[in-house]
Amino acid sequence: MAKIFHSLVSVEEALELVSDAAYLDSSAREEVDVMNCVGRVLYEDLLSPIDSPPFDRSEVDGYAISASDVFGAEEDHPVTLRLVGFSEVGRLPQLELRSGECVRIATGAPIPKGADAVVMVEYTKESEGRVEVYRPVVYGENIAQAGSDYVIGDIFLRRGTRITSREVASLSALGFKKVPVFRELKVGLFSSGVEVMPPGSQLTVGKIYDANGPAITAMIKEAGCVPSYLGILPDSYEAMYIAVHKALQEYDLVITSGSTSAGLGDMMYKVFDSLGKPGILVHGLKVKPGKPTIVAVVGKKVLFGLPGFPVSAMMIFMVLVKPILAKMSGIDFQVGRVVTAKVPFRIPIGKGRRTLIPVSVVTDNTSYIAYPTPGSSGSVSVLNYSDGFVDVPENVEFIDEDEHVTVNLFSDQLVIPELTIIGSHCPAVELIFNLFQSRCVTKVINVGSLAGWNAIKRKEADIAGTHLLDEKTLKYNTPFIEQFGLKGKAVVVKGYIRKQGIITKPNNPKNIHTIIDFLKEDVRIVNRNKGSGTRTFIDYNLKILSESLKVDLSSLCKKIKGYNYEAKTHSAVALAITQERADAGIGLEFYARKYNLNFIPLVDEEYDFVVLKDRLSKPKVSEFLNVLGSKDFAKALPSKLDGYSTTESSGKIIEW
Amino acid sequence: MAKIFHSLVSVEEALELVSDAAYLDSSAREEVDVMNCVGRVLYEDLLSPIDSPPFDRSEVDGYAISASDVFGAEEDHPVTLRLVGFSEVGRLPQLELRSGECVRIATGAPIPKGADAVVMVEYTKESEGRVEVYRPVVYGENIAQAGSDYVIGDIFLRRGTRITSREVASLSALGFKKVPVFRELKVGLFSSGVEVMPPGSQLTVGKIYDANGPAITAMIKEAGCVPSYLGILPDSYEAMYIAVHKALQEYDLVITSGSTSAGLGDMMYKVFDSLGKPGILVHGLKVKPGKPTIVAVVGKKVLFGLPGFPVSAMMIFMVLVKPILAKMSGIDFQVGRVVTAKVPFRIPIGKGRRTLIPVSVVTDNTSYIAYPTPGSSGSVSVLNYSDGFVDVPENVEFIDEDEHVTVNLFSDQLVIPELTIIGSHCPAVELIFNLFQSRCVTKVINVGSLAGWNAIKRKEADIAGTHLLDEKTLKYNTPFIEQFGLKGKAVVVKGYIRKQGIITKPNNPKNIHTIIDFLKEDVRIVNRNKGSGTRTFIDYNLKILSESLKVDLSSLCKKIKGYNYEAKTHSAVALAITQERADAGIGLEFYARKYNLNFIPLVDEEYDFVVLKDRLSKPKVSEFLNVLGSKDFAKALPSKLDGYSTTESSGKIIEW
Repeated sequence: MAKIFHSLVSVEEALELVSDAAYLDSSAREEVDVMNCVGRVLYEDLLSPIDSPPFDRSEVDGYAISASDVFGAEEDHPVTLRLVGFSEVGRLPQLELRSGECVRIATGAPIPKGADAVVMVEYTKESEGRVEVYRPVVYGENIAQAGSDYVIGDIFLRRGTRITSREVASLSALGFKKVPVFRELKVGLFSSGVEVMPPGSQLTVGKIYDANGPAITAMIKEAGCVPSYLGILPDSYEAMYIAVHKALQEYDLVITSGSTSAGLGDMMYKVFDSLGKPGILVHGLKVKPGKPTIVAVVGKKVLFGLPGFPVSAMMIFMVLVKPILAKMSGIDFQVGRVVTAKVPFRIPIGKGRRTLIPVSVVTDNTSYIAYPTPGSSGSVSVLNYSDGFVDVPENVEFIDEDEHVTVNLFSDQLVIPELTIIGSHCPAVELIFNLFQSRCVTKVINVGSLAGWNAIKRKEADIAGTHLLDEKTLKYNTPFIEQFGLKGKAVVVKGYIRKQGIITKPNNPKNIHTIIDFLKEDVRIVNRNKGSGTRTFIDYNLKILSESLKVDLSSLCKKIKGYNYEAKTHSAVALAITQERADAGIGLEFYARKYNLNFIPLVDEEYDFVVLKDRLSKPKVSEFLNVLGSKDFAKALPSKLDGYSTTESSGKIIEW
Repeated sequence: MAKIFHSLVSVEEALELVSDAAYLDSSAREEVDVMNCVGRVLYEDLLSPIDSPPFDRSEVDGYAISASDVFGAEEDHPVTLRLVGFSEVGRLPQLELRSGECVRIATGAPIPKGADAVVMVEYTKESEGRVEVYRPVVYGENIAQAGSDYVIGDIFLRRGTRITSREVASLSALGFKKVPVFRELKVGLFSSGVEVMPPGSQLTVGKIYDANGPAITAMIKEAGCVPSYLGILPDSYEAMYIAVHKALQEYDLVITSGSTSAGLGDMMYKVFDSLGKPGILVHGLKVKPGKPTIVAVVGKKVLFGLPGFPVSAMMIFMVLVKPILAKMSGIDFQVGRVVTAKVPFRIPIGKGRRTLIPVSVVTDNTSYIAYPTPGSSGSVSVLNYSDGFVDVPENVEFIDEDEHVTVNLFSDQLVIPELTIIGSHCPAVELIFNLFQSRCVTKVINVGSLAGWNAIKRKEADIAGTHLLDEKTLKYNTPFIEQFGLKGKAVVVKGYIRKQGIITKPNNPKNIHTIIDFLKEDVRIVNRNKGSGTRTFIDYNLKILSESLKVDLSSLCKKIKGYNYEAKTHSAVALAITQERADAGIGLEFYARKYNLNFIPLVDEEYDFVVLKDRLSKPKVSEFLNVLGSKDFAKALPSKLDGYSTTESSGKIIEW
């Protein structure tokens, strides 16, 4: 495992190094029909080929007149004019107006000669060839003058403009049928890694699905380019060389992902370096995550090797690849969407490297809050919960609580959630959403009960799911309003009961019946993470046990094999037992049944919801609580989720 | 011109009226490949088909160990472990770790049995089958546990989600090859109006190009639906009926635009009403602009008739049609992008109707400012300059200066301009941009010199172009720094000289040589709008004339035919003369030459730039001023623009 990184370079240095190769030659111009040009980039400044409007025209339905004729006209003293004709849209009227005359005119119709204003039909009365006018008009009123908008030769759109519906409107209004645009960039994309398998295939042990292929394909598309996904690179130097070499001939730019760090990475590095001059320009980026990034130029083609973890690959795509694609597509500026957000707590940053922190954007009604997404770079949930990332320069050691940061959104289509739920994970929450009248844009972040209470305190969650036992009062949840200083600020709403107990293998081969059995020589447990309600419950029971056994608590814990092996979710506990990594653990009956494991009930746990008081009036919060207290939910809950039941208080405020 | 509007209804009422028809039947579900699903809408909640990660894996390169073995390890006192094998990505290791042993492991490789942590390679030293560990690790460190992310059956994406690259990443990471989505909505679109001609055709007198066809096509596409543009509706009841009837059979929804107000509107109304039950539900929307909107339901199909003016059609599309398209596409929420902006001055609103005000969004570096776009609904420049619109409820009478409003953006791709120039229009400004080193995202709004000074005062422009003559000092531009109270806040930078004079028909048939000739019986002039530099110049000269003739100024003005006929641009003056609507006007030599007209020089006008002092350091402002003072510009200016020349001070600050 030799370290094969050369000296790390910054993103700016990397962009500079490839800038000469990042262009398209004169073949970059093509013409597309105005009907198909949305999303494309203008190749040249466009001049109006016509005067716009092409003739003086009326902006209203009414009568074309000479303004001086109706000077002083009033409701009580209308001025009467002679109707001498009409002007309709699409035809130039041949008549000429003289003093005392008027011409009936429609919106968009040409102004007849001699007229210098139009009075709206609402302020007139026509009868028998005469028109009474009840209001004066000023010269030019309700007339759009020829050329007042654009004249022949005026620049109305500039080179490099990304065409949206707005630009299509002015292009077509000025008569453009064909629009000169940059041709679309063709990008070839490979995934790599011996562990990587294509989605849809059967996953064998030790393998994972290829997320980067489809995800980077989508990002290339969103950047306005044409991706070609070329599959997972073969696992040999020769085959890899041939595939990448061929792609470089056929595409404007080639991207690979994975196999950049070690082992296979050596091979990828050698392939990149042997394809042609100037070869590898960057091997190792001074960015976290993203160090294992390779940038090469072969002839005039740019070649990127992105990291294997999807979150890293996507962020490095955004800071490094997207600017190059934009430049080669004719756009000199970044089009990525950003929002300004506060950070909810102090975030320490490792020194010496630019750091990209995936964040989930939530709102407290007055501003956005960027919540660092918990989980590792390899995690799918990090992908799923993150709306974008914060880009922290290398000289920054921390971001302070409430500091404002810029969030680079993963997509221009970010939808702000109507309801944000942070806290303990519970499958019943999904059941509540299923019973909503209309769909609701929700963000659910599962980080444990304690983190949920903190999120309520920081106001970034509307609702937090909690099942925390207070050791003093032996009450669930309600005492924590006081303990978290949320008196008057938040309420606890009764949720439901979930059965917790000991989960063991089917038929309970190690004869485990109470927590005391965790001390047996041949038993290895799987514990839960600190801050979770279940861990609090386990530790409370061990404390009682240590007192009754008259043993020091920490000695007791040391005797339990696996005590420090912390699963983060109920399901991971069940999985650890299924996969024989542990003999027992504490978890929900629901997950025991789901994995066909043995379950010994210990406690009816009270799972409740903490709600910020000033969010109770939010429509989606009140719908959530209504469903929680509904008969439909009471009926559905026990039938869909083993070990669950509502109480008479479900959906009611039980502490405030 | 009978008023054919029934009682006006609000947008909310209109949405409610069509809501029953706005759905797709069970044929709405289809499956697409994960490679092609970006932009589509999920048809159902998606459950994870696998545990993720599928196995315990290492998050780093290093050694899998038992954490308790290296407790207390330090730089000076490393713990030495026996290397018993290795775990590589893609394969499940068969060995089992015992105390004192370690296994070399790569990022992403499965954790061998018996190991409960991974120490990073950076904190180890391997030699001859032994590994020295220099740091302790905690249990579970650097391990991503199986199922810790998602377990089989966890809901990870919800029905109604618009798929972006982020969702593609999690879909493929969890193995989805096919994704269930709502099928794309097929929308048929017609334009209409006898004056409307397709872009690319030869425009005849009285006709205009069809902007709505291409623009609404683009908007339908941007809303994620599939548009079919079916052309301009024929101009007869029967043909119109047949075309719309056929479209209703073939498409999920049909939209027409134009011909909704009067005359032809009667015909459109009759066609809509005769197509089938329930027929027309809305005829007349309580929205300004947008009153002439028709909504009908024929069988189970929704039919919209949008206004003819592009700006109106696009805004009504956004408030009325887009929500229906979203609902039918499976999205229950609005996805339109909005920004919050201040309004720069008090905007009066007509009472009694919801009002949509097109605005241009500019930035003063701390916030967005929404500047109502000058011009009528029929204007192409309104389209081109507007980034979105402010939606004012019907009970609001005005928006106050500095009030915050929500701007509904026409596109999700809005790019904030790097440079905003508001003021007098001048073709030389485009020449300056052509000489920029790199492309610059600019917004140029031409509203006249006075409005430019006001924009500087309100800080919404970086730069304003001005050619205002101060009557007292007879100096151009510089005195206004004092008059606008901008001392210390803005500077005047020397621009260039433009020749202004009298423009007449070729060969000057009416023998016009000075402004005094404007008084001739057979001469009709075209004037300029108040607030423009040229109008100030004309009025100043007329004042001098009235004094020398000893005539009252207003009497003098009354004697001049066309004095109240106000063109808004130099080019409109030239066009009025070309089209024989006027015999003479004051304008730039450049436009006289462009239209092959006769030009009598009167004055060397000084066209300068007012720049906000605190924007002088903005990179693009300083580049603008550098180009203005450059030799390249001095050389290009007179050769490209007749009557233009730089001075020695061009690009230099001449007043601060």
